[in-house]
Amino acid sequence: MQPDEFRRHAHEMVDWIADYLEHADRYPVCSRSKPGDLLATLPASAPEDGEPMAAIWADFERDVMPGITHWNHPRFFAYFPANNSGPSILGEMLSAGLGVNGMLWQTSPAATELEQRMMSWLGQLVGLPDGFHGVIHDTASTATFCALVCARERATGFAANREGLGTATGGRALRVYASREAHSSVLKGARLAGFGAEHVVPVGIDAERRLDPADLERLIAADLAAGHLPCAVVATVGTTGCTAIDPLAAIGPIARRHGLWLHVDAALAGTAAILPEMRWILDGIGHADSLVFNPHKWMLVNFDCSAFYVRDPDHLQQAMAIHPEYLRTTRDAEVVNYMDWGVQLGRRFRALKLWFVLRNYGARELRAIIGSHLEAARAFAGWIDEAPGWERLAPVPLNTVCFRWLPAGVTGTDALNGRNLDLMARVNQDGVIYLTHTKLDDVVTLRLAVGQRATTLEHVRQAWEALQDTARAIA
Amino acid sequence: MQPDEFRRHAHEMVDWIADYLEHADRYPVCSRSKPGDLLATLPASAPEDGEPMAAIWADFERDVMPGITHWNHPRFFAYFPANNSGPSILGEMLSAGLGVNGMLWQTSPAATELEQRMMSWLGQLVGLPDGFHGVIHDTASTATFCALVCARERATGFAANREGLGTATGGRALRVYASREAHSSVLKGARLAGFGAEHVVPVGIDAERRLDPADLERLIAADLAAGHLPCAVVATVGTTGCTAIDPLAAIGPIARRHGLWLHVDAALAGTAAILPEMRWILDGIGHADSLVFNPHKWMLVNFDCSAFYVRDPDHLQQAMAIHPEYLRTTRDAEVVNYMDWGVQLGRRFRALKLWFVLRNYGARELRAIIGSHLEAARAFAGWIDEAPGWERLAPVPLNTVCFRWLPAGVTGTDALNGRNLDLMARVNQDGVIYLTHTKLDDVVTLRLAVGQRATTLEHVRQAWEALQDTARAIA
Repeated sequence: MQPDEFRRHAHEMVDWIADYLEHADRYPVCSRSKPGDLLATLPASAPEDGEPMAAIWADFERDVMPGITHWNHPRFFAYFPANNSGPSILGEMLSAGLGVNGMLWQTSPAATELEQRMMSWLGQLVGLPDGFHGVIHDTASTATFCALVCARERATGFAANREGLGTATGGRALRVYASREAHSSVLKGARLAGFGAEHVVPVGIDAERRLDPADLERLIAADLAAGHLPCAVVATVGTTGCTAIDPLAAIGPIARRHGLWLHVDAALAGTAAILPEMRWILDGIGHADSLVFNPHKWMLVNFDCSAFYVRDPDHLQQAMAIHPEYLRTTRDAEVVNYMDWGVQLGRRFRALKLWFVLRNYGARELRAIIGSHLEAARAFAGWIDEAPGWERLAPVPLNTVCFRWLPAGVTGTDALNGRNLDLMARVNQDGVIYLTHTKLDDVVTLRLAVGQRATTLEHVRQAWEALQDTARAIA
Repeated sequence: MQPDEFRRHAHEMVDWIADYLEHADRYPVCSRSKPGDLLATLPASAPEDGEPMAAIWADFERDVMPGITHWNHPRFFAYFPANNSGPSILGEMLSAGLGVNGMLWQTSPAATELEQRMMSWLGQLVGLPDGFHGVIHDTASTATFCALVCARERATGFAANREGLGTATGGRALRVYASREAHSSVLKGARLAGFGAEHVVPVGIDAERRLDPADLERLIAADLAAGHLPCAVVATVGTTGCTAIDPLAAIGPIARRHGLWLHVDAALAGTAAILPEMRWILDGIGHADSLVFNPHKWMLVNFDCSAFYVRDPDHLQQAMAIHPEYLRTTRDAEVVNYMDWGVQLGRRFRALKLWFVLRNYGARELRAIIGSHLEAARAFAGWIDEAPGWERLAPVPLNTVCFRWLPAGVTGTDALNGRNLDLMARVNQDGVIYLTHTKLDDVVTLRLAVGQRATTLEHVRQAWEALQDTARAIA
């Protein structure tokens, strides 16, 4: 592709993206594709000769677009959001154009230093105390895995890295504690790091589904008595199911007393702490050894951008770093080489989009947007509370409302579960909104998570109408 | 940022990127920043009020650009390349605009199905036999880590995932074999997965620095006699130091005989196999359980895009997958959910850029570009061979030439090492080229890796002149 061709196609692409972002609400939120729809249109092999972008683009619009689920849609209420914004997309464009790999300071000093400063800005915005050092990871799954490896190495004095887990603990099991509402990435990270699923200990929860510190204490005592080695506790600030907020201030001293690594998973909720009135969700964060939260979820930054903080970056680096000759530079003693702070060697220049977003919006506007999402979620919760035939299933400390439909005459968990799954399937199929479910205990629970940049109270009202209309149609 | 503002700024950004790509050779290749240069210009905290993009952009050009090392530069000869291209940047732009998270089929069916087909196209292009199934990972480090986890779980019948490595092997060490020229990600992956660095067994190499199968066989026998559990062998096709190509056809039967997982790291070199005359580098790949190569290194695709192939996707998924209720959909039995194929849950829509590149260039043009890089590297090797005062230090099967300067009157490894590090520092500081070093045994070895999209024989000739001029200036 010649430079003038690139220029022309990129301008066309910009107009398409700008139109798309302005009118993402024209599409059904969740794709209506059936399995194999796109595969059936794609040739079995790559073309031998190059094709013009116009032909590729026509195929994109005809064959790919119907298979897109619109995470940008203002009525996307599924999972947790992965939102973005104009300045963030500009940052991604620039990062792609520069094509920088920021594995070492030398391979682009600006990529490293901008990341250092952005991690500091972010830490201040959410109220982290001094002494945390940050790095951008791709996802909270990776960050939580790294935290568990750090915990493993602290508990074994780096013997696990040296000689392997088979002998590092003298046959004693390393135990990881997390509430049973914790994200699946805790179990996954513990498996990957060699702890074993059986040694991820589910801690009891209170009525609001927060980790119960007294139960944690009991479980640790029982494990010690059984000859196990308590190693790490993962506290969740904003669980995936219902955004329960584990009490860090109570968990922290227990972790410290028993020498456990305290990792805090605030993947979604961390962003809310930029609001002074929400700062309490991180009360006790000073006890943590590590923390992850995802600006790519709720801070208008494109996926991927996960902020991972540790108190002891030397420990993290000792757990992660390997320095073959071909990666040594004369600057290594003076600078940060972020390749030593995580799993991957190569690293995209992700600090750019964060810089663009934080500067172009400014803290005040970001607070206003997050605040409006919280308000919209509270409004929706209020409508559920007032409506006969609907039930709210969890408190709403953040942006996510857990609820279910109680159709007249239907009783019993199984029957209600079935009707709510039907309702969800129908309303998603209609295309006006997209929301997903979880189970709280055995109860199928619909979740409405407000977090897209463009989502307003009006969109949430439309969601409520769509749910009521669909429920009426089914009943 | 309003839609019309985004549109305007994005058009400006496109013109900047197009100019940059056309004239990347105006810049010194390696940044001349000193540690802290950019940090000194950045405010300590995020702004409270939003700032116009024009102000941010002025800061970018003044403060950030001098800190960029230009991976796009046609005289970037350092490490291995991370190249890109017009169609790939278009793909990144579109991916950023769509903001899709392809963790599940349902969260964007097109993202999953395009990835499935692109992995099939790529596999055919490099001549993989039937029966390999691919997924896009971010980096080869992650892919190799996943391969080692797969190996661990096969060797333990999933007991490691279940009960942890402390007891899964009854105290026997799981052993991983790789040549001592293998990439640091093998050692890192083995540490992360709990094998322990001591159980990564360095296999001897032949005169061309290829893994010696006879030594592998001996080491396995010795380990069995010592009561260890041979678990995996990582063969490298194109080592980082000097692109040595381990003999898969000889390693494969040994791996099979002893039940070892054979993972092939072809991170750079895999791309070369799109050339019929280079297909031999993957001879014996049919023995492999997994393979990784990086289209983001040498196939004109933006970082990150690492192609990870396995023969048994069920095994990979059993090793990786966890299915909490909130990630279940009604389609799970019919479709691929790529979140089950790796470490991360969230996934960018990376297949787009691969689709754009493979279609817009076509296989023929990609072969021509890779072929021209190979030719330029061979030419450079020829100049080194003919020039008095220079020495080639390894064969050149691919795009990378290993060499050193032999200044008149200087003898002894240490003295020569020092002079070559000086030469490298000086020539990089001059800014005309950027190249990096390794050590082959104790010998400081300069590496010239040809792989940028725009690099021609003329650029390589300029590199040779710059090296000779700088050597003369030092002498």
